[in-house]
Amino acid sequence: MWRASIFTLFPGMFPGPLGASLAGEGLSRGVWALETHDIRDHGLGRHRAVDDTPAGGGPGMVIRADVLAAALDSGIAAGDSRPRLLLSPRGPSLRQQRVRSLAQGEGVILICGRFEGVDERIIAARGLEEISIGDYILSGGELAAMILLDACVRLLPGVMGKEASGLEESFESGLLEYPHFTRPREFEGREIPDVLLSGDHARIKAWRDAEALRLTRERRPDLLEADRKTR
Amino acid sequence: MWRASIFTLFPGMFPGPLGASLAGEGLSRGVWALETHDIRDHGLGRHRAVDDTPAGGGPGMVIRADVLAAALDSGIAAGDSRPRLLLSPRGPSLRQQRVRSLAQGEGVILICGRFEGVDERIIAARGLEEISIGDYILSGGELAAMILLDACVRLLPGVMGKEASGLEESFESGLLEYPHFTRPREFEGREIPDVLLSGDHARIKAWRDAEALRLTRERRPDLLEADRKTR
Repeated sequence: MWRASIFTLFPGMFPGPLGASLAGEGLSRGVWALETHDIRDHGLGRHRAVDDTPAGGGPGMVIRADVLAAALDSGIAAGDSRPRLLLSPRGPSLRQQRVRSLAQGEGVILICGRFEGVDERIIAARGLEEISIGDYILSGGELAAMILLDACVRLLPGVMGKEASGLEESFESGLLEYPHFTRPREFEGREIPDVLLSGDHARIKAWRDAEALRLTRERRPDLLEADRKTR
Repeated sequence: MWRASIFTLFPGMFPGPLGASLAGEGLSRGVWALETHDIRDHGLGRHRAVDDTPAGGGPGMVIRADVLAAALDSGIAAGDSRPRLLLSPRGPSLRQQRVRSLAQGEGVILICGRFEGVDERIIAARGLEEISIGDYILSGGELAAMILLDACVRLLPGVMGKEASGLEESFESGLLEYPHFTRPREFEGREIPDVLLSGDHARIKAWRDAEALRLTRERRPDLLEADRKTR
């Protein structure tokens, strides 16, 4: 079973949206498992403090290395080799290729920061790997963790209705996905392209490939560049 | 008041994690408002069908243009000029600059797809704008919508404890953020860098600026390139 362990100050946020739809059905059926660890259980003193002011000054608060270390040490079994991912806008960007590789592993350990971030020393001290879901700032790592989990879980065997649905999608081929159409044939004067109604599978495939390439060129030329560089 | 209207097949997922922490407090205090519209209320027939098989064949299902049009037409008032954003991996990538601009507006209308996507014709017919939160595939647009909302809401006046906390962060300056440290001064033999304890604000700023640049060079040279191009 694919296992996700979450270290967070907001355990009540989980499973949240992951309890519904495809991911939720997979959770109920035991395709994957989710456990949360409340970092505050390891907070200091009567108020269970988890953070302190940044050394050198500045706004916000920083999560203490010793508190997070205590939470991780008590929550992760010896020999657990799952990746320890710290959701952080400073990490390299999550991409579909990494999602696929994570989904093929045993699961993930996810650490959710809040406030200004975590004390830098915990990263090396506990072998954490920073990872970012995009170039924007969130109020914490919890929603980012859910994004990573949703992306992984849908790829687990038995989660999506049709396995094939996992292929032919944006990024899997290095291209954005071609446009989709369905009934009705005419909608407010707009028709489904003739080729899609032709029944000629070779022509349909050629049209879709050309549209995927056109959309990628127009919207995300960086994907074509990246693809060329890795060859 | 900043208003978010969500069109989804899973209205029960909202506010979910957005009901807690900073975003949730802002919601309770009326800094922002959230309303959901169930696309299925406009489904067809006894089973309230919202999707159909893709024209031209292939796996999965496509949300019908007529059903989504009916939902949007009934849920959006005439003259509502908020951006109509369709969460989709085919859109351009959300970045912090766009988040800031959305936060400064009146709010957003978010359309969450599921399955293979939505019939392409609805996009032009209702002036939707595709937007992607990252280069990976999710089971639906709901979590992506929450990411966009969390990023926007934390920038609304009165949501973050200290306004300053919104500055000096990753991407705001075009650079990744410098490392943070807090007490204790020594953690498992690892010390806080001396400069941060010096009390010399000019030296601290110089160290932080240099670290931000070093991290960005090492991890995200694309951000430096992008910045150079836009000058």
